[in-house]
Order: sequence, then structure tokens, then C-alpha cells
Amino acid sequence: MGDSVQTAILGVSGYAGMELVRLLLQHPRLKDRPPVFLGRAEAGHDASLIALHPHLMDNNGSAGLKIEPFSWDLLKARGVDVLFLAIPHEQSREFAPIALKHGIRVIDLSGAWRLTKAANRAVYKFHDDGAPVAVEVQAKAVYGSAELHRDEIRTAELVANPGCYATSIILALKPLLAAGWVDLDRGIVSDAKSGVSGAGKAPTPKTHYMYAADNLSAYGVFAHRHTGELLEQLGLDRSQIIFTPHLLPIPRGILATSYVTFKKKHSADEVASLYRDFYADSPLVRLFARGHLPQIQYSVRTNYCDIGFELDSDGRRCVIVSCLDNLLKGAAGQAVENMNLMCGWGEAEGLA
Amino acid sequence: MGDSVQTAILGVSGYAGMELVRLLLQHPRLKDRPPVFLGRAEAGHDASLIALHPHLMDNNGSAGLKIEPFSWDLLKARGVDVLFLAIPHEQSREFAPIALKHGIRVIDLSGAWRLTKAANRAVYKFHDDGAPVAVEVQAKAVYGSAELHRDEIRTAELVANPGCYATSIILALKPLLAAGWVDLDRGIVSDAKSGVSGAGKAPTPKTHYMYAADNLSAYGVFAHRHTGELLEQLGLDRSQIIFTPHLLPIPRGILATSYVTFKKKHSADEVASLYRDFYADSPLVRLFARGHLPQIQYSVRTNYCDIGFELDSDGRRCVIVSCLDNLLKGAAGQAVENMNLMCGWGEAEGLA
Amino acid sequence: MGDSVQTAILGVSGYAGMELVRLLLQHPRLKDRPPVFLGRAEAGHDASLIALHPHLMDNNGSAGLKIEPFSWDLLKARGVDVLFLAIPHEQSREFAPIALKHGIRVIDLSGAWRLTKAANRAVYKFHDDGAPVAVEVQAKAVYGSAELHRDEIRTAELVANPGCYATSIILALKPLLAAGWVDLDRGIVSDAKSGVSGAGKAPTPKTHYMYAADNLSAYGVFAHRHTGELLEQLGLDRSQIIFTPHLLPIPRGILATSYVTFKKKHSADEVASLYRDFYADSPLVRLFARGHLPQIQYSVRTNYCDIGFELDSDGRRCVIVSCLDNLLKGAAGQAVENMNLMCGWGEAEGLA
Amino acid sequence: MGDSVQTAILGVSGYAGMELVRLLLQHPRLKDRPPVFLGRAEAGHDASLIALHPHLMDNNGSAGLKIEPFSWDLLKARGVDVLFLAIPHEQSREFAPIALKHGIRVIDLSGAWRLTKAANRAVYKFHDDGAPVAVEVQAKAVYGSAELHRDEIRTAELVANPGCYATSIILALKPLLAAGWVDLDRGIVSDAKSGVSGAGKAPTPKTHYMYAADNLSAYGVFAHRHTGELLEQLGLDRSQIIFTPHLLPIPRGILATSYVTFKKKHSADEVASLYRDFYADSPLVRLFARGHLPQIQYSVRTNYCDIGFELDSDGRRCVIVSCLDNLLKGAAGQAVENMNLMCGWGEAEGLA
Repeated sequence: MGDSVQTAILGVSGYAGMELVRLLLQHPRLKDRPPVFLGRAEAGHDASLIALHPHLMDNNGSAGLKIEPFSWDLLKARGVDVLFLAIPHEQSREFAPIALKHGIRVIDLSGAWRLTKAANRAVYKFHDDGAPVAVEVQAKAVYGSAELHRDEIRTAELVANPGCYATSIILALKPLLAAGWVDLDRGIVSDAKSGVSGAGKAPTPKTHYMYAADNLSAYGVFAHRHTGELLEQLGLDRSQIIFTPHLLPIPRGILATSYVTFKKKHSADEVASLYRDFYADSPLVRLFARGHLPQIQYSVRTNYCDIGFELDSDGRRCVIVSCLDNLLKGAAGQAVENMNLMCGWGEAEGLA
Repeated sequence: MGDSVQTAILGVSGYAGMELVRLLLQHPRLKDRPPVFLGRAEAGHDASLIALHPHLMDNNGSAGLKIEPFSWDLLKARGVDVLFLAIPHEQSREFAPIALKHGIRVIDLSGAWRLTKAANRAVYKFHDDGAPVAVEVQAKAVYGSAELHRDEIRTAELVANPGCYATSIILALKPLLAAGWVDLDRGIVSDAKSGVSGAGKAPTPKTHYMYAADNLSAYGVFAHRHTGELLEQLGLDRSQIIFTPHLLPIPRGILATSYVTFKKKHSADEVASLYRDFYADSPLVRLFARGHLPQIQYSVRTNYCDIGFELDSDGRRCVIVSCLDNLLKGAAGQAVENMNLMCGWGEAEGLA
Repeated sequence: MGDSVQTAILGVSGYAGMELVRLLLQHPRLKDRPPVFLGRAEAGHDASLIALHPHLMDNNGSAGLKIEPFSWDLLKARGVDVLFLAIPHEQSREFAPIALKHGIRVIDLSGAWRLTKAANRAVYKFHDDGAPVAVEVQAKAVYGSAELHRDEIRTAELVANPGCYATSIILALKPLLAAGWVDLDRGIVSDAKSGVSGAGKAPTPKTHYMYAADNLSAYGVFAHRHTGELLEQLGLDRSQIIFTPHLLPIPRGILATSYVTFKKKHSADEVASLYRDFYADSPLVRLFARGHLPQIQYSVRTNYCDIGFELDSDGRRCVIVSCLDNLLKGAAGQAVENMNLMCGWGEAEGLA
Repeated sequence: MGDSVQTAILGVSGYAGMELVRLLLQHPRLKDRPPVFLGRAEAGHDASLIALHPHLMDNNGSAGLKIEPFSWDLLKARGVDVLFLAIPHEQSREFAPIALKHGIRVIDLSGAWRLTKAANRAVYKFHDDGAPVAVEVQAKAVYGSAELHRDEIRTAELVANPGCYATSIILALKPLLAAGWVDLDRGIVSDAKSGVSGAGKAPTPKTHYMYAADNLSAYGVFAHRHTGELLEQLGLDRSQIIFTPHLLPIPRGILATSYVTFKKKHSADEVASLYRDFYADSPLVRLFARGHLPQIQYSVRTNYCDIGFELDSDGRRCVIVSCLDNLLKGAAGQAVENMNLMCGWGEAEGLA
């Protein structure tokens, strides 16, 4: 693709949608071609973007930003090349196939197209699972983790942007698993903690301030939707990893603490070197020096995934700590990273 | 009344209701006569109190606590003497008159019966305002501020438990106004800040963690419902006081900063002495020593209203800081204080 | 011992000391014999307890509470039976032996006397480790976990009150380990998270609001002092458990998520039953019903340890979630529990 | 001045210093001339900027950023044109005069040079107040509020960057006072609330998480240092305004609620129009539309001051709510705004 493209976002009312709007508005390649902001006509969306997201307000014309009612005709009239879907996964199952048919490339932020195995998809209960169109579209979908699938993403028609928890855990574990170092018989534990924005913008009993503040709770034990992404991307079977999410009393950020045992003894230098090599070409992964561990506050409001580790004196037990902003590297930032690759631009343009 | 009474609470699902349950369960006079917990039959309430409020769980029988479907017959069968209403004000307009007709004394935690002037009630838009029954019941209502109306409360049939903001401001200002010290031409400002529990248990955009956390916002400027209580209890007209509430990013607690100018110069000792005399018989007001000001953390989870002040070197401008727990001295604690008075018990029994 | 005893607290300036003061002042057995509050003479402590801890202020005489300068003569003059030490562990190494020599029973809240194996104590670098007096005193020390050592505590001269993290993990795992169900070759992971009060009252870069708020960080990986307690009380060797603490952005509370694999398949009913039997006589452990997990907000400001679990569909992998208030069941509450046992009173008196 | 200048920052360890580093590193005019970061030689500063502020870490060379030991020779060798002082005010009294003597223009973020009247400066207890050099330097100082002193700042040798509270209140009140609308006999009240970063980076009892969290406290009543700025910039005498600061349990942000009474009745349109005209050329003030008030979360992490108001139905009493980020528009952002003016660049370059 050329120097610029025409982008559009369908679904700008949620937190990830808001961050996506912000990132695209300030992207250096899109300066002269602002994204088209779309709402579903029947959703009764507010026509002013700023009324919906006062956080995006500035004194430079943001007041004029409009959400337009979605239609395929509008997309064609605007010459949209890349469509971001920041809508519920059921809706994405419906919209993505049509976009592809219109020749529009899609970056989908939902869980609709991330999983290749039917068993892993079961938790989503897609009504169209197994239908010919869905099968065909799924076959085209590339899991949008630049660090793992950089080349496939470049030419993808449909990129399935990874889940926030999944990103934090996959990037922490992949180098060790790819190297075959991990003793899978001992099992892997990933204990993950996320801020409240991960629970979405809808007011519910669990997003009420009185529930979330001064609290910590585990949820979705053995049952979280992101588990399938871990299994497929890390090449594990269900018995080899436990992932437990927790709700943190903070607005945003994820910290995952992952526990592995190596098959044989390694030095900390060997571990550090393994990570450095694996992420040598990954501008949006930050590796922490020995003796330092990532913290949520360092990664929040950045597009990075931060990774650090501690190795036991036995040289076999290793704790990996990874952090990211669930709305950025865990959602909108990673989506823009995918756009950059799809357009032949630098992976971190507009993100570092 | 005798050594004990039979109490009942209608409306135990909200935060104030929960605190009321807790206070009555541990009240020394009610040890042998636990309150009756009532839900409106049509509300589909959960029959187990602990399922609704896990915070009340203990290992001493709390598991057996039940919410029973409300009926007047049940109240009579149980011999209820005092009924707490912790329900929306529209419902209280309906229930309180019937309770009185049944000879049951009522402590109402809503705004239904606090205001004697129709102009001040207008903001509530009571559908029955001015109707003969409502007029008659309102005439019986006593504003449940022990510090101001101790004697009337003792014999009241219906006590209108004060608003949380109103309590914090009335107790801060009443001694100065009663003494005639305040220059009302200069106007009074009460800038008040409340934790999120004051906004209620319903999940709404404003009680969402992402809205309330790391934030502060003013609301209801010139328009908050508690304004009428200030005017009536402090003997002011609308032009003489401005009260602005703010939503604090904390679970509970109110701090009100009130600004007055004295007609003539006073010493700090005179001010301290005025407060000490006014609250000499008030066990649930704590006066802070010179050089110390109340803070929300000192009053939260207590039944006290804390008051302190700073006097300008001019001897005329005075800043009064008052704090309380909006669910306790601002709601359930004050309700129990009123029960204590109505039953002839010590004002602070079960509360200090 | 008789109906009452004379207690004293040395070290009332910290958070645990403050909670201990509060619990003893309201303890039903101590109503007529208030504790003696002691500060080290050279510490320049404030003579007024309320000046130090405004949270303890009430309108019932708390203003008169004094901190007295410590001396052994004073302890004898007051006839102190039970001395609580809420002081740093180095100081406790010095004070506890002398108290025992004076025939005063000691409940020590520090880490000074919790560990029987020199290897586990090494992390504390006690200057007197191995000295005859220290060896003799250590031999008398009972680990103050009522649920594990109820009988020894009753007659103990010196009770070593457990660490906060250790309590949350030991109570979560002990029933499973005691039953021999856990496959230790797979290793146990305990991922624990604590509020900031666990880091102490001293202002440091890590207790600064700007560090702790909106953040989560892991620390002390493979190196936390409480590890030795886990090993000794659970009968594990170092290679069999990893415990990772994290600093939560909340004032108080601990949640530990523990991961075990069973040697063979069990049903959830069997697991529940095992826990019920183990804690049948433990009034300060609350077991959560199937489908419910403890949360920090349920346990904070209580003296309970809450425990719940989820079992994988494979019947072998089990996640146990335990919560407690680090200042109560994790410190002062457990200390009072130990006092109750030492005095022949009900284990939960003044605590439930 | 030309297209670029050489900047230097003395004092990069605090929060404002950190934000200043961030803003200058990304300033479009300074791309080819990164700032010189300076620490006082005797302060034992860390030589790596990232070690001090992990928040500034990126994957683009930030690792190489160094703090150099300050010396005037170094400043000359680097050809520094503009020196930012983010150091305590006592130190700034010492450094600023020397810088001016060397022909280096200074933007001082402390309170050292903000006040022209000795009475207002008294609170700072400058040891050199009244000394000839100090008098001479003070005479050159321009109060760095672009909205009030745009033209003087352009040519200033020394700009005294305003206080954070002062900025929020001055910008809220100046249009009304400049127009002569305010009845000063009634007095003005500004009730202001700030996040914890305003209290500085040093760990103290008041910046401890346990003090600040879940709390609100008033402080410095009638005595805050920023009062002098209000009086001088707003042309008031001490009796005409009360300003009370409060410590909010949030990391950053200020909200000030200001109360004025107009001499005569005005319509809300007239008020809105007055503000619009006053700030017509001010790109970093955002005026909120009728019915909307600023909130801290909208202004945090922006360089704006947000202003909104509510007018009573009497047309005379007006509540003005203003918000800003205390580290940006209240410190580092405003400092960069001043640099922009001093260099002849757009006021909001690198800031909007």
C-alpha cells in the first residue's frame, strides 16, 4: 500500500474504541486522511464524538468530529481500505465477512476470529460456527500478534487482534516454549491481574466503584475465554497451563505473573539472552534488565509489553512478570501495530 | 418504652440498609429481639440476607438471616414497635402513613418527610403533596437531628432521618447561626465532597469505577435536594447559602468545608467555647482541638460527626471543616441514634 | 488463668499495634483491666495514644489513654500477665527472653521466633542466632496458628504470631497437604497480593502514594521472609512451593491464589468436605460455598481467614483462594486469638 | 530567536522535572537539539535518567539519556539559551541571578520569583529578601501566565512559572475581575483540591499511601503560599478572597470551585461571552459549554486549564469550576508554554 490509507472504525463508544480514535488521529501517516468514525445506525449513537468521549476534546478541531451512521455504501464512497471493528464478537461475525467481500481489509478487536479450533471457540457459542462462510473467513484470519506472526499479518485480509490477557501471557512465555525449555509435565501457572477498564464500559454490579475499589477478586477460574488463545499460540494442551484472571482496583493495566520449570538448569544470562534474541526485531516489547521487574505503572499509557523475570537459585524455576496497558498493547495499540504491518509501514509508527 | 423493642427494616438491599442491619444486629438492647428484615414482595428479593450482603457474613448464625416478604399483617404478627424505612422516597410517602395508622413508629431514611415548606419539597415532585393525609403526616414528622431536636424526637411518631450532606453542614453551622454571629449579607459557602456510596448501589455511568476513580467532579450546583434541609434547619433563605456537592473517588465519607464571616471579631477561644457549649450533651459530635482539623479517614466507619475550624487572623472569617460517614452519622447511625431517643435509651447506645 | 488478665503492649505506633490497642480495649474479658500501653523510653514517643492514632478517638475517655515509658519494673508493678510485642524482630530477640525470665507470657508479632530451622532463619540475620539463650527461648516458642497448634498455644509461654502472608497460604493449603492429596512433584504456586499497610508505617519510596496507587508490582520473588514459615508449617522443602508477593493499591487485605495438583482425581464435594472437617472447630475460618470465592473486601476489617476453591473438570487441578485482613487475622486479630487460647477463653472472644 | 534553541533543565528528579523532560524530548522545535539534563553535583544524582524515571523509558534511545553534573562552564560549553530551574525555591534564589548574569534566559518553576510585594513573599522567608541583587532580579521577573502576560513573557529574561493552585484559580476568576463584575464586599471563596503529586516526591507521613488513600483533608487554611499570587495577579487584598487547599486521594489533577457574587444581574450568555472574549487567543484554555462542568479526569495528562460555570437563577451568584493537571498546565506544561513565547513560537507548540 502507499503512503497513506483510508481507515474507518466501527464502534467508537467503548474504551478500546476511544483509544483507537486517539491513536489514529495522531498517527503520522494518517494526518491528511482522518479516519471515518462509524456507529451502527440503530444504536442511536450521539453524532458528536466529543460528547461521547470528552477525554478526546482539544482546541484544534476535535469539536467537529462526527460519528456517522454505518453503511457499506458509505464505506465505499469514502474509499475505505482498512476497517477496524471494535464491536461485540457476535456483530463481528456478521460484519467481517461482508467487509472482506467488499475488498476491505479488516482488523477485528473482538474474539470473533482468533481461534482456529472449534473446541476453543465453543465458549463463545457462535451461532454460525461451522457454516461455510465462517469457515472460509476463519481460514483467512491471522492472529494479530506482530511478535509471532509479523509476516502473515503484512499480507492478511483479516487480522484477529489478540485478547489483552492473552497478549500479556503469550509474549511472556513464547520465547521459553519456542526454545523447548519448559518442563510441561510440571505445568505452567499464569496468575493475571487486570484493571477495571478490561470489564467494559457498561455499568454493572462488578464495574460499580463500590465493588471494585479497595478490593481484589479472582474470576473465571478454569473458564476464561482467553484460554483458547494461550493454547493455540503457545502450542499447549489444556492440562499444561492454568490461567487465573483477577480484577484489580485500578483503571487500566495488566500484570501477569507466570511460573514455569525448566527441563534442565539454565543461567539467568541464558534466559536473558533467549528473550533478547526472540524480541530483537520487536520494537514494542521492552525487556527489563536483571534485578528489575515490570510494574503496571510503567506500562500504562504506553503501547509496550514489558517483560522481566527472576530465576531461582536452582536454575530451573522461573517467574516471568509481564505488564501492558490492556487498552493499548492489549487492544487499540496492537491494532494500530497490525495496521502498520498491513500497510508496509514501520511496526511502531505512531506508537513509540 | 421498655428495655427492648421489636424493630423491623423495610429495604435492606442498599448500602444504608446494610449498615442499619449491622448496627441493629449488634445493638445491646436488641440482643434478644433481632430485627425483622423485610423486602417488598414484588421486588423479587433474595431470601437470604447474606447472599445479598456477603459483608455481613460471620460464623455465628448470620447464615440463617432471612429477608421476609413485607406485609402489614406480618408486622402486626411480630409486634413491631419501630419500623425503619430504607426505601426510595416515593415509596416512603406511601408506607409511612399506613404504619402510623397501625400505631407503628417510623424512622424514615429517605427525603420523604424532612421538609415542612412546600417550596423546598418541590424538587422531589411528590405526587401527593398537599393531599390531606400527607399534610397530616408531615405535621407529625420530626427532623431527626438529635443535636437540634432531641426532645421532640423522644416522643415522635415519625422521624425524618436527615440527609447525609445536610447533617455534615447543619452540625457545622448551627452553633454559629444560633448564636447570631454570622454576617448573612456576606453569604455562606458550603463546599461538600462525598464518597461514591452516596450515589447509591445501582450501577450507573456515574458509579462506574472508570468514572469515579482518579477523578473529582462537582454536580447539582444550585440544585441539590439537600438544600431545603439546610434552609429550614438553619433558618436561612436561599440567597444566604450556596452548597456545592462533589463526587470523591473514595467509597465512603463526607467532608464539608464551610465559609462564614462573623458580624464582629471573635477569638478562636470564643469560637471553640461556643461549639463546646452547644454540643455539651451530644455524645456523637467530636470537636477537634485548635490546630487540628477533621479528615475523612478519622470519621469513616464511626457514628460521629467531627467538627473543627480555622479562624483568620482578622477574627471574622472562619472556615469550618466537618466530616462524617455518609452511611452512618449520615444515615444508618443517625437512624439508630433516633431509635435510641425514641425508646428512652442513651443517645449513643450501640454507636460509640 | 482466671476471668481476666493484665495485658500490656510494647510498640503501639505501627498499624498492627494500633489494631491491637483497639481489639484489647473492646475485649469483653478486659473491660475492667485495660491494657498497659508501652513505648520504648528512648523512642521519644508521644505520651497521648490519641495524638498518635486519631483513628482510636472516641467520646468515652479515649482522650485519657497514655503511652507509658517501658521498664521491667513498671511491668511488674502492674502485674502484667501477658505481654504483646509489636516491635521490630531485632528488638523482640532482646525483649522476649527477659520477659520469660520474669514469668511474663509473651505474644510476639514479629518474625523473631517463628522459625525452628536455622536455614530458614538465615534471611533475618539474627545477631544472636545459635546463642544458648536464643536456642532455649526458641525451643519454648509455639507457632501461633490456632488452627494448627491450638493445644500447644494454650500452655505456651511464648507464642510466635504468624506472618500475614504465611497465614493466608498455610490455612489455604494445610488441609490438602495434611491429607496427603497434593502431588508435590508438580510443585505448588502461591501468588499472593497485599495492601500497602503490610509495608509498614514508615514513609518510604514504596509506600509513597504515587508509587503504590494505580499500580501493581511483584517483589521478593524467591526471597520473601515468610517462605520459611510456609516450609515449616506445611512440611515442604524449598523446591516444592513458590510464593510470590505483590503490592496492591489498597490500604489493607491479602488475597492469595494457590495452585495445586492432586495425586488422583477428587470430586469438589470431597474437597469441600475435607476443608469442613479440618476447620470444624475453627471459629475464625470461613469456608465459602461452591461457586463462590472470597474477595478482599469481604475479609477486610474482620478477624476471619476466608477460603474458597475451584476444581478443574479433570478433578486434579485445584485453585484455592484465601483472603484475610493483614492487620487482623494476619496480625493483631490472630494475636488476640492466641491470648484467648492462652487464657482458657473462647478462641473467638472479642473477635467475631 | 531562531528555529531552535538549546535548553537545559536543572532538577530532573521531581515529578514536574520528569514531565518537563518528557515534554522537551518530544517538542517539535527541539528534535535536533535535545535538552541538557543537569543535577547538582553534590546531590549524588544517578547518572542515568531512566534509572531515576522508569516512566520515561522507551525503545528509542532513552536508555542513553544522562544526567550531567551541573556547572556554569558546562552550560556555556553547550551554548544553553534557556535554562529551566525545577529546584527548591531557596536554590532558585541563588541560581537564577547567576544565570541572568551569564546571559541565559531562565524559566523558574519554584516560588522564588513570583511575588512582587515583600508582604506576600514573607511566607517564603527568603534569606536574601531585600538584598540589591534580589531586588534587581525580581524587577526583571515576569509572572509566567501566558493568558495574562503574553507580551511581557515574549521578551522576558526571567519567567516565574506560576503555582499550580494559583493557575487554576487565577484563570477561573480573572475574566470576571478584569471586567469589574464581582462584588468584592461579599468576598470570594476558592475551595481547591489537588492530587498527591502536588505534595512532592519526598516520602513523608502525608504522602504515605495509608494517609492519602480513601481520605480527604484540608490544609494550609488561611496560610497557603500560593495566596500571594492570587492577590497580586487578581488585584485583590487579603480580605477579599479565601483559598483553601485539600489533599485528594488521586495521583494528579486540581479542581478549584470558586464562588463569586456579581454587583448586578447578568445572564449566563453574558458570562459565557465574557470568558470567550477573554480567552479568544488562548489555545491552552478550554471553556466548557453551558450545562457542562470540567472534571479532573478530562484535564489530567493534558496541558489545558478547563473552565466552566453555573449561574444561579438570581443572575448574581456564580460558581466557577476550573481543572488542570498540576504537573502540566500547573507546572511543566506552562513552563514549555512560556518557552514557546520566549522563543517566538506558537504558544501551544508541543502541548496540544
